[in-house]
Amino acid sequence: MSEVTLHEAKEIIAQEIENLARRNKEPEWMTRIRYKGLEAFEKAPHNDPVISKDELLRFIAKPEIEGFPEHIESLDDLPPEMKALLDRLGISEVEQKYIAGLAVQTDTGIIYNQFLQEWAKKGLIVLPMEEAVKKYPDVMKRHFLQMFSPNESKLAAYHTAVWNGGIFLYVKEGLKVPFPLHLFFLIQESALAQAPHIIIIAEPNTEFHLIEGCTAPVLVKHSLHLDMTEAYIRDGARVQLTVLQNWPEYVHTRPMTRARIGKNARFINTTVGLGTGRSNIANPKYWVEENGYVELNGIILGQKDWYVDLGGEMYLQGREAAGINASKAVIMDESTVITRGKIVAEAPRTKGHISCDALVMSDKAVMETYPGLVSRVDDAELSHEAAIGKIHEEELFYLMSRGLSEEKATQLIVKGFLEPMLKDIPMEFLIEIRKIIEMAVSGGM
Amino acid sequence: MSEVTLHEAKEIIAQEIENLARRNKEPEWMTRIRYKGLEAFEKAPHNDPVISKDELLRFIAKPEIEGFPEHIESLDDLPPEMKALLDRLGISEVEQKYIAGLAVQTDTGIIYNQFLQEWAKKGLIVLPMEEAVKKYPDVMKRHFLQMFSPNESKLAAYHTAVWNGGIFLYVKEGLKVPFPLHLFFLIQESALAQAPHIIIIAEPNTEFHLIEGCTAPVLVKHSLHLDMTEAYIRDGARVQLTVLQNWPEYVHTRPMTRARIGKNARFINTTVGLGTGRSNIANPKYWVEENGYVELNGIILGQKDWYVDLGGEMYLQGREAAGINASKAVIMDESTVITRGKIVAEAPRTKGHISCDALVMSDKAVMETYPGLVSRVDDAELSHEAAIGKIHEEELFYLMSRGLSEEKATQLIVKGFLEPMLKDIPMEFLIEIRKIIEMAVSGGM
Repeated sequence: MSEVTLHEAKEIIAQEIENLARRNKEPEWMTRIRYKGLEAFEKAPHNDPVISKDELLRFIAKPEIEGFPEHIESLDDLPPEMKALLDRLGISEVEQKYIAGLAVQTDTGIIYNQFLQEWAKKGLIVLPMEEAVKKYPDVMKRHFLQMFSPNESKLAAYHTAVWNGGIFLYVKEGLKVPFPLHLFFLIQESALAQAPHIIIIAEPNTEFHLIEGCTAPVLVKHSLHLDMTEAYIRDGARVQLTVLQNWPEYVHTRPMTRARIGKNARFINTTVGLGTGRSNIANPKYWVEENGYVELNGIILGQKDWYVDLGGEMYLQGREAAGINASKAVIMDESTVITRGKIVAEAPRTKGHISCDALVMSDKAVMETYPGLVSRVDDAELSHEAAIGKIHEEELFYLMSRGLSEEKATQLIVKGFLEPMLKDIPMEFLIEIRKIIEMAVSGGM
Repeated sequence: MSEVTLHEAKEIIAQEIENLARRNKEPEWMTRIRYKGLEAFEKAPHNDPVISKDELLRFIAKPEIEGFPEHIESLDDLPPEMKALLDRLGISEVEQKYIAGLAVQTDTGIIYNQFLQEWAKKGLIVLPMEEAVKKYPDVMKRHFLQMFSPNESKLAAYHTAVWNGGIFLYVKEGLKVPFPLHLFFLIQESALAQAPHIIIIAEPNTEFHLIEGCTAPVLVKHSLHLDMTEAYIRDGARVQLTVLQNWPEYVHTRPMTRARIGKNARFINTTVGLGTGRSNIANPKYWVEENGYVELNGIILGQKDWYVDLGGEMYLQGREAAGINASKAVIMDESTVITRGKIVAEAPRTKGHISCDALVMSDKAVMETYPGLVSRVDDAELSHEAAIGKIHEEELFYLMSRGLSEEKATQLIVKGFLEPMLKDIPMEFLIEIRKIIEMAVSGGM
């Protein structure tokens, strides 16, 4: 394919912007933000090791969602192909009552958010981003694109121009949500740019757990999930964000997540990558205030030729702020997994720790780890540790001597290796996660 | 100062080359290598964070050594100012018998190498590089600039063009040298480019320890030590290279060290950085064959505004090759210390470990660490660990409760922190190193 000229690129993006603006009937101030993304696209740096600048423009934010209902009342109303898809994330195992708080984005639009009406009165708002822009323009103007600049990369510029879907999640001061909130991203189309924008405002002393599940039918070819999440975790709030990815082979993921964690607040951000996507590159950033705490957990099962590069930068800006970046990876087949946490201590008595453990299961698999620690004060405590290795033969032989087949013994060791990282995953997902791990180790995906 | 044009740069370097070639009466093939450096200078990348491209050319490889003898028989024959300089490295403490194997490079030329005549017969050759080029042209052509290319950086290109001094150290198969060999680098001039080229050939099953000491009078302003070391450690050889740096405030150091470590061979490379130089940036590389072992140790005492950035790449290419990269840093004042080891496992059953410990003593000091581990096989064992912190107050209070002043207690803790890394340093240097650490911690440098 010949190179896309600058003029052509601008034409492509402008057309997408016009289509989305028309579909969303969005206010002009938002369309102006999109055009800032278009302008930034030209000069913004692009150093993605997998997706070239031209290839990026082949992922289109198609505004149509055909054949799907706009709103549904329960999972039973979903079309059968979507229900089958949710199987890949373990949803079929789940009783309906567990997934009361559910929104589903298929391709570029949120189709299901008619839930939690009684919780809205208590101060829990979950709205598709397109609706939030119209309903709460002042809040959105103060929080949309405050932690990112479209100039920082072509990916950020492209997201800004063509963002679609995503949610606005607002939790009123002091409100504690006792059940997990679910948000599912499904890609049904090939050559799609699914670019949800998510804004989370956790007012002081709130508590909740948002679980995102991502998948697509195995027939989807070369689509891109390019989300951007801005999380405002105010003083004393305790928030968990768990992302389960089970993309098929050809899907690229470029999640962009940033969070400001207030005084005495806690934010636990966990990613479980189980799929055989084409590539996943992420570098979330967190700014942590006095006595705040952030935890970034990564659990990666690298299969086929999945290319995974997970960063994670933590800026401990307030006294006694703390951060932990922990990852465990099992790397099989021809997969490449790279982890690069970084913790910067900028205030007194801050603490940070990075750990990375990896099991390399194939001589064509590649594991790389590059943690970074930066201390700019004289009384921070920063540490890291890592271990890359293989399954110890003695352990395998021991289990086999107890009557297990090599396959079962290997499954057991791999599950035992990953298990400690899954402590915060709700039970209904754990069942499916364990099943996926077993199948992967048996070469059965 | 205005920008140096490309034409001017080439003129400056060509003049230096002509002066050195004339002084050395060197063979034409060597001068041609220098001109390859000059040609490479134009296009070679330059990303030194401290020395700009223009500034680099203000460090001149002045060929004159005025007022110094060409050869001396013993340390007593050295001019008093040089003897005083050696004090900074602890030499005045040393009995002459301990420094039998001694060569001294002041500025751009080796002035003392009339030693070890009887060992020459056994197969130990130590020659100034300029003489080796004339005496062993075939050996030099096969080993000079084989591990580097002048195209890889402006620093490598400039070194290639203006290299001066350094030694050729050859140890014949099976020879074990029972005493350490000493090589001293002294800078007497300001605005100097001291660019020694060192070739070490350790034939199979040899054993020896080369100690390099580096210093300059505190009056020296803005000089550059730009050495290049190529070490061929053949099968079964056991070699130690220890570098003691005690540069004054304005000296930049850019040591470039590379080594090939043969089957069953061992290479231990230790750097002790005690000075208050302006900057020290190094990224040694090691290629290790079957069952070979490499160890890179860094002991850094960061004072004043010294900027230290120590890399270290190890490529474990043979089965069961192993590498260790360990550093300990004490960072005071406004000093910045960065460590970035990298170990790449390219063969089965290889092992690697990176560790970095740092004590940050000042809130204007900066410590950064970026270890990297890469596994390209399924049965390597790689690990790293790091800890950045301050002196534990309990430890300090305990020692003070036993009657020590805060200063003495701090000295004791800092020495205890660094001590385990000094295990391979000969006693005569240890005395001086401990004294320097004590003075530094007392703010008395």
